[in-house]
Amino acid sequence: MRAYRHPPLETVPLEVVMRAFSDPCRIAIVRTLLKKAECELACNEIPLDISKATRSHHFDVLRDAGVIFTRCEGTKCMTSLRRKELNRRFPGLLKLVSVAD
Amino acid sequence: MRAYRHPPLETVPLEVVMRAFSDPCRIAIVRTLLKKAECELACNEIPLDISKATRSHHFDVLRDAGVIFTRCEGTKCMTSLRRKELNRRFPGLLKLVSVAD
Repeated sequence: MRAYRHPPLETVPLEVVMRAFSDPCRIAIVRTLLKKAECELACNEIPLDISKATRSHHFDVLRDAGVIFTRCEGTKCMTSLRRKELNRRFPGLLKLVSVAD
Repeated sequence: MRAYRHPPLETVPLEVVMRAFSDPCRIAIVRTLLKKAECELACNEIPLDISKATRSHHFDVLRDAGVIFTRCEGTKCMTSLRRKELNRRFPGLLKLVSVAD
């Protein structure tokens, strides 16, 4: 089982979180999670027409920027948004992502 | 005299403006402009310890993302933030950049 690193949000610089949102696939992942309130999603529940390796890369970038949290349960990995922490550290960011098309 | 392109903000996707803020130098440029209210600055008035070519590249990225406006006056190029348009198209973005350290 792969061990995932989740950086404390206060150590994530603004430019790193902005880079995490500089790709339309990653924006789509976060928007799907935003619609799910506090829920978790299995990675494959997020509809994306990309390879497994590319999908993994996008989840890694989001995780390394403190945007998502991954919890593994058996062979399944569940993903959630670090919503409260993000709102505290980067106020307005998630709202911007949800409203700007 | 170089002619600068300024894209209409409604044609700039969220990922492009986010990419513009994915670099600490570009964040520093925008923060300097944010402190100047509605004023313009000559490019060399913005303190950055980088080469002229790198500085030019950063201004190009910001301009192409609709963040800054460049007006040439003789041999001098004056830069301003497209503040009102940015606030309309990407609400909360400039506030986020000004508050998140």
